[in-house]
Amino acid sequence: MFDRAQSEALSAFGDGTVFLERFLEKPKHIEVQLLADNFGNVIHLFERDCSVQRRHQKVVEMGPALNLPEEVRNQILTDAVKLAKTVGYRNAGTAEFLVDRQNRHYFIEINPRIQVEHTVTEELTGIDLVASQIQIALGATLESLGLIQEKINVRGVAIQCRITTEDPSKNFQPDTGRIILYRSPGGRGVRLDGGPGYTGAIITPYYDSLLVKCTCSGKNFEKARQVMLTALAEFRVRGLKTNIPFVTELLKHPTFVEGGKVWTTFIDDTPELFKAAARGSRSHKLLRYLAELAVNGFKVAGQQSVPALQSDIVMPKFSNYDEFSLLHPCTTGWRNILVSEGPEAFCAAVRKHPGLLIMDTTWRDAHQSLLATRVRTIDIARIATQTSHVFKNMFALECWGGATFDVSLRFLTECPWERLKTLRKLVPNIPFQMLLRGANAVGYTSYPDNVVFEFCKKAKECGVDVFRIFDSLNYDENLQLGIDAVKAAGGVAEAAISYTGDISNPNRKPYNLQYYLDLTAKLVKAGIHILAIKDMAGLLKPKAARMLIGAIRANHPDLVIHVHTHDTAGTGVASMIAAAEAGADVVDAAIDSMSGLTSQPSLGAITSALEGTPLDTGINEDDVLAINSYWEQIRLLYSCFDPNVKSSDSGVYLHEMPGGQYTNLLFQSQQLGLGNEWIAIKKAYQVANKLCGDITKVTPSSKVVGDFAQFMVSQKLSEQDVIEKADILSFPQSVLEYYQGYLGQPPFGFPEDLRNKILSARNLPKIQGRPGKSLPPFDFKELKANLEETYGLSNFNEYDLLSAALYPKVFEEYKEKIDTYGDLSALPTRWFLTPLKVGQEFTFDIALGRTLIVKLVAIGPLNEETSTRDIYFTLNGEARLVNIVDTVTNANKPGAAKLATRPKADPKVKGEVGAPMSGIVVELRVSEGNVVKVGDPIAVMSAMKMETIVTATMAGKIGQIHVAVKDSLSADDLIAVIKKEE
Amino acid sequence: MFDRAQSEALSAFGDGTVFLERFLEKPKHIEVQLLADNFGNVIHLFERDCSVQRRHQKVVEMGPALNLPEEVRNQILTDAVKLAKTVGYRNAGTAEFLVDRQNRHYFIEINPRIQVEHTVTEELTGIDLVASQIQIALGATLESLGLIQEKINVRGVAIQCRITTEDPSKNFQPDTGRIILYRSPGGRGVRLDGGPGYTGAIITPYYDSLLVKCTCSGKNFEKARQVMLTALAEFRVRGLKTNIPFVTELLKHPTFVEGGKVWTTFIDDTPELFKAAARGSRSHKLLRYLAELAVNGFKVAGQQSVPALQSDIVMPKFSNYDEFSLLHPCTTGWRNILVSEGPEAFCAAVRKHPGLLIMDTTWRDAHQSLLATRVRTIDIARIATQTSHVFKNMFALECWGGATFDVSLRFLTECPWERLKTLRKLVPNIPFQMLLRGANAVGYTSYPDNVVFEFCKKAKECGVDVFRIFDSLNYDENLQLGIDAVKAAGGVAEAAISYTGDISNPNRKPYNLQYYLDLTAKLVKAGIHILAIKDMAGLLKPKAARMLIGAIRANHPDLVIHVHTHDTAGTGVASMIAAAEAGADVVDAAIDSMSGLTSQPSLGAITSALEGTPLDTGINEDDVLAINSYWEQIRLLYSCFDPNVKSSDSGVYLHEMPGGQYTNLLFQSQQLGLGNEWIAIKKAYQVANKLCGDITKVTPSSKVVGDFAQFMVSQKLSEQDVIEKADILSFPQSVLEYYQGYLGQPPFGFPEDLRNKILSARNLPKIQGRPGKSLPPFDFKELKANLEETYGLSNFNEYDLLSAALYPKVFEEYKEKIDTYGDLSALPTRWFLTPLKVGQEFTFDIALGRTLIVKLVAIGPLNEETSTRDIYFTLNGEARLVNIVDTVTNANKPGAAKLATRPKADPKVKGEVGAPMSGIVVELRVSEGNVVKVGDPIAVMSAMKMETIVTATMAGKIGQIHVAVKDSLSADDLIAVIKKEE
Repeated sequence: MFDRAQSEALSAFGDGTVFLERFLEKPKHIEVQLLADNFGNVIHLFERDCSVQRRHQKVVEMGPALNLPEEVRNQILTDAVKLAKTVGYRNAGTAEFLVDRQNRHYFIEINPRIQVEHTVTEELTGIDLVASQIQIALGATLESLGLIQEKINVRGVAIQCRITTEDPSKNFQPDTGRIILYRSPGGRGVRLDGGPGYTGAIITPYYDSLLVKCTCSGKNFEKARQVMLTALAEFRVRGLKTNIPFVTELLKHPTFVEGGKVWTTFIDDTPELFKAAARGSRSHKLLRYLAELAVNGFKVAGQQSVPALQSDIVMPKFSNYDEFSLLHPCTTGWRNILVSEGPEAFCAAVRKHPGLLIMDTTWRDAHQSLLATRVRTIDIARIATQTSHVFKNMFALECWGGATFDVSLRFLTECPWERLKTLRKLVPNIPFQMLLRGANAVGYTSYPDNVVFEFCKKAKECGVDVFRIFDSLNYDENLQLGIDAVKAAGGVAEAAISYTGDISNPNRKPYNLQYYLDLTAKLVKAGIHILAIKDMAGLLKPKAARMLIGAIRANHPDLVIHVHTHDTAGTGVASMIAAAEAGADVVDAAIDSMSGLTSQPSLGAITSALEGTPLDTGINEDDVLAINSYWEQIRLLYSCFDPNVKSSDSGVYLHEMPGGQYTNLLFQSQQLGLGNEWIAIKKAYQVANKLCGDITKVTPSSKVVGDFAQFMVSQKLSEQDVIEKADILSFPQSVLEYYQGYLGQPPFGFPEDLRNKILSARNLPKIQGRPGKSLPPFDFKELKANLEETYGLSNFNEYDLLSAALYPKVFEEYKEKIDTYGDLSALPTRWFLTPLKVGQEFTFDIALGRTLIVKLVAIGPLNEETSTRDIYFTLNGEARLVNIVDTVTNANKPGAAKLATRPKADPKVKGEVGAPMSGIVVELRVSEGNVVKVGDPIAVMSAMKMETIVTATMAGKIGQIHVAVKDSLSADDLIAVIKKEE
Repeated sequence: MFDRAQSEALSAFGDGTVFLERFLEKPKHIEVQLLADNFGNVIHLFERDCSVQRRHQKVVEMGPALNLPEEVRNQILTDAVKLAKTVGYRNAGTAEFLVDRQNRHYFIEINPRIQVEHTVTEELTGIDLVASQIQIALGATLESLGLIQEKINVRGVAIQCRITTEDPSKNFQPDTGRIILYRSPGGRGVRLDGGPGYTGAIITPYYDSLLVKCTCSGKNFEKARQVMLTALAEFRVRGLKTNIPFVTELLKHPTFVEGGKVWTTFIDDTPELFKAAARGSRSHKLLRYLAELAVNGFKVAGQQSVPALQSDIVMPKFSNYDEFSLLHPCTTGWRNILVSEGPEAFCAAVRKHPGLLIMDTTWRDAHQSLLATRVRTIDIARIATQTSHVFKNMFALECWGGATFDVSLRFLTECPWERLKTLRKLVPNIPFQMLLRGANAVGYTSYPDNVVFEFCKKAKECGVDVFRIFDSLNYDENLQLGIDAVKAAGGVAEAAISYTGDISNPNRKPYNLQYYLDLTAKLVKAGIHILAIKDMAGLLKPKAARMLIGAIRANHPDLVIHVHTHDTAGTGVASMIAAAEAGADVVDAAIDSMSGLTSQPSLGAITSALEGTPLDTGINEDDVLAINSYWEQIRLLYSCFDPNVKSSDSGVYLHEMPGGQYTNLLFQSQQLGLGNEWIAIKKAYQVANKLCGDITKVTPSSKVVGDFAQFMVSQKLSEQDVIEKADILSFPQSVLEYYQGYLGQPPFGFPEDLRNKILSARNLPKIQGRPGKSLPPFDFKELKANLEETYGLSNFNEYDLLSAALYPKVFEEYKEKIDTYGDLSALPTRWFLTPLKVGQEFTFDIALGRTLIVKLVAIGPLNEETSTRDIYFTLNGEARLVNIVDTVTNANKPGAAKLATRPKADPKVKGEVGAPMSGIVVELRVSEGNVVKVGDPIAVMSAMKMETIVTATMAGKIGQIHVAVKDSLSADDLIAVIKKEE
């Protein structure tokens, strides 16, 4: 070690002598201000404590040094003076010392100049050092300046901080750019020595990054510290990062608060100083969101236009209530008995209730069917307390689950749990219902059991009362799991039977009355609290409703029956009345302006149709109208997600597509260029259904049939072709997983020989029983660890943990957006969706009592190199500038490379492997020269969330491969060529 | 007489000698062509007959003169030669004679020049006159030119016409401007001598308006006449009027056809020559319509935007029929029995039919409720034959009456009768139903009885089978009249009871079950064939349906019951099923894409809900879907009239506004600036209903209540105020007429004391009984006479006569538009509504086999003085130019005078009379200085088709009047001041 230092010195400086210095453990850095005239007189102006350093750079200085024993202090002062006298020092200077923990002081050097922190001494002694320098240089004596040692004394304490643009989170690298806003503090004991800090100034990397020196003084240390903290808080510096948050953290750190018990490496030794949350102002992030919306256009996926509602929402008047009581949530309703006496008593009371009970789906299924599930929490919460009063006779409000979980994270950057908790607080009296997709909770794939259990436990905690559990194949084992998870969580288990076919039509096999009665019996034995009939495609005709409910009621007189339908064919109201008359206890309805067509039947229609009958719902017509006038506006507000279905369609009885899928498939097939084969798709949908064994079709099973249908159409396959060539066709991923049993067992079993042909050719294993059973339990601890490591402990809670478990990727993007735009849930939807125009201004409360007035003032010109723009706002009158990347202007400049035309695979040449349909290559499983057998996977493609494996069509050696990962192909494009082994 | 001529000659010419000429009655004008050389030799080149003249202007000339006896002819010829010889005439000349009916010839004059019609002689003799002139002037002798009398002979006949731009309909005043297209005929025997006629030439008023001389020759007169007619027909001169149609008429006139038995004043003596229909090309008028649409914007009232459907309509495939049979109408259906056995048998068969029968309202009420009744005949006819097959099990198709009569004349410029006849031919097998408004047929006011009878007779003739007769107050006498008129016409009388209130609600007085049963009994006694329940506001709940129909069925087991509703509240399907189960025979439904909301319940929903039940409708689901896919497109085609009501509204049970009125009132109140008082209007509507005596509300009675409500709101009147101040308030005209009884008697009588107070204060008479009774019978003969005089006999038929009787003003405007734009019924709706863009081209058949290809080529610049533009089209490739007035560009230049602010009436000063509401002044009934008493009418105002009389508020003398007729006022503007008599 020693000799290495010697040889290094030799080569760099030409000689090898070295000095050994003693190592001091956590020393303090004390310096003494000296002043000497040209006639040998020397005085000291006391000491300064500069122990707060970062890599030997002073950060905070103060005077006098507080926790030095008095004699040590005086010793240092006299030594400094003696030293200066001995060398005949002239004018101003600073003697620097290190003091170790045993208070032994060591001299370091004298700085022959005025130092940055000389202001501390000036405030303590009231002497102007710079003026003294000049006068001494002009030949004045200390005495003539009245600078006699005994008459100079220290008053109070002074602290100095340098306000710089160093960014602690980027390792104190100074930030540069234009200062948008600069305001400095004032007041008692605050002294500022200005640098280049003012509004509009441009800080460049060529100069020191100091903005201003702030020196604060007070009678004692604590006072001075307080003054400093206030001054720091009053600084407004926008547009550049500053070290203010860091210094603030420093001054609040307990070690510092105890009278500055710090040492030179204090900062380097306490890393949590760096953690101080870069609070970064929320308002600044909000402006970033608004700026991007104004320049780059719509930010929410699926938004087609600007909302039709461009005025403020008018709250309805409730003539049957006095205004005051509506301010607080109602406390009486069906939830009371559930909370106080549990599910069984709740169900018994429901069963005994003479009138028909209704569940309002406006908060979930209605906007899922009509507005692509885009309604935000703020728009539901706004009407929640009023709803708790006027709808206190509701059986429940369906407000959670289904696609809302996924959509609020993915598209609305809202936390679904927050929504649940918010609504629960506002509506404590009406039961909340959620839709649970049996084994896959609220997702599209199966999850390990402990995820489902954990999910239900948390959902119950946050306010879900009734869980509607369904399985897309009515597969009882999946249903069983859901039921167990719900009961374990203490919720009301409402098992749903997905209804399909038409039992009023004797020759519509195999879904006959008996099938549903058997399934009902099985579920009752499984210990459900409520049975639901889920008519997701609106196939339940009035007659069928009477037959089914009548029969179930006869077999289970005490069972609470809940009927759910969609009004796709226009028979919704008639069927619900028929169901009610046949003995149903509860039916689903949506508020008038959110009802009809692919949504639920109209609430107003049902209540008024049953008014004054034994089935009277007890819901008052005026209240419905008042609530309705509110949702009328909400519907216009979300008109940009409204697919504008004009009227009902009774063709649904044939193709049996559930509500959502119908519009999606229609929408997709136009874009994939399969437009005029829409009829072919409807026909193929029925054939695919048969090939799957005529199954119930709801998410995700409806997706399997949909993918299957598209596959048959794009490959021009008839039923016969599928059966004959099942071993070499490359089916969609979801179809293969279905035949493997990942969704469970279909109601009437698989068509076995077709299934075996498909699986054996690809030696894919069959999954017996419940698919989730074979999944290893989910490891929450491990997940928690990496979340901690990624976001830090305080930035996620136990519910985020679950969201991350269910949607890892979606959760990630959600956190990113929150980090970029901050929490936008208080932003009114109108401005969440509508791009601001220059000169437009709006006001809203971002938090209780904090009102923001936002105005877009100007959109700056495009900066060609960085393709960014400066966007000018005024926020509460303050000018603000946000710089964003303009992704629109140069995107549609000419030159984006077009799809080059690619060679097609020649079906007559067996060795040429073509793309089964148009999509994107996500994986290549082979490379040139590999040997393959028939059925070996060659590539994986994906289109519209559907993955397909492309397999080898003959045995041989892979010749040339014509595609790369991420290429987008159209049907029959050549992927690879297989050459015979010669 | 004689001496007056003498003195006139004296003063004008300075001497008074005059000549007496013999008057010849209907003479012929014969002229002889002479040719003489400079050496005294004279020959004649035979004669020309120039008797076809107009005001001594020759129009058609021909040679030789046909019906002159041979010796008279030769006599004239020799006299001419002798005459010329005697005076030593040289070169060319024409001797003119008049020949009277006794064939005596009188010499007039010799024209010493070549005449325009010299070409006739050239064609007859083959001699070039002009060349001969020049050679004779050069000194040649006749002989040297081979011009010897004996060797010159006449061959065949030649006729000459001058093609000019004289416009017979403007008294032969020459037209000027640019010739857009000029093509001239050719062929055997056609000789043309050109003038300035060519494409692009500009004809100015400074030169003779001759375009070209056309001389045709043939072996005999008939041949020559034929050649001429063909030549005239082959002329294409566009852009300017020409005399071709007139000359064509002339040549076809029997007098002329008989070898030219004409005389000099023939034209002036036969005026019907002028009547020749100025055929004006249809295609030119069509282009005018398209040009105005392209430049001035939408032409159909109420059109909000461009149709959403911008591609061609795709006709549906009917898988259950072979294509060929669909080309011809189906011949089997419910109409057969009606036609063969009459109404009673028809009803008995209906009554016996086990399944539920349906009437399809798509062709009338559906588009009346959803698309403001704007669907055009062409879009219905296109699907008519297919409909006749797939819907042959329909009870009827509602396709006429209601607002269609008014709207097709007023807004679609289509003849409603033509629509009826067209559809009847295409659908001979299904009964047609129309909606008849009792005493006011299809109008808004009452008509004399003979109009109603005549109307029903004609409607029956044209194809209406079933008449739904209703009265807006269920007033039996009005209903009786309708029933009588229908039975007199031999139609099926379906009397409708307008349903209101809610009989399932015991305390919704006074419309209880008993009321409807009594009314039913009365109607049955009146001898109706069918009873209809007209639930125009969709108030019939399922329970109410069961009670009502059940009770009626019990009382009248053989009565055919027909139920009609609107799906405003969303309970439509449920109520119709309930009605069917309770014993209704027929219910109304609309095709799915035209159903729901303010329209009828969905056909698909009802048929599929009843499929396989005893009530099965027997309508096949696939057929419904096929027909539906057609109307889906039609709905998009008329999206520009679609008020976009998003969802059902159960508030209708309270305000009971019928379908149409609901959207209209909403629409109006936004425009009149009463926007946010919409709720007040709904409340006022209920109060007004009570003040009227709680009546049934349908057109026109709903209009009375609507006007009343608006009046109360704008005057801020409560129920009390109306009752107290009934004597001085100035009620809307329709309200006064209602209280007088112009609509008949309300179901439960007027509130008498209020009525008397209103009428006596204005001494308005009460009308007892049926208002139409006291109207004098309508005088059709007189109407026919002035139509004849205005449009001419052949331009209107017996059905137009009725249209004019029902809607005089509307009919007038309709005829004007037809005259301006021609018959547009063949124009596809897309181009009827969408403004053409430059470069856009479309094709259609304007008549069987006549295909037009229209392209808009360019829109010319605005001509500042005339503010017109030239619009360039190509029609089948031919360039065409249409000049139109541009009403848009300078309309919104600044400077249109704004509404100056006017003084308001001060309510505290009794003498100041203010405007009761905002509207337009149509009449002033007083002038300065008149003496008035309380209640005297001062002015009449009108707003949105509602007239109001403004009455005096105190007795006194009229001071200054502040308004004039046609001023538009806002509420409370000062109209006049009444000063006390001093």
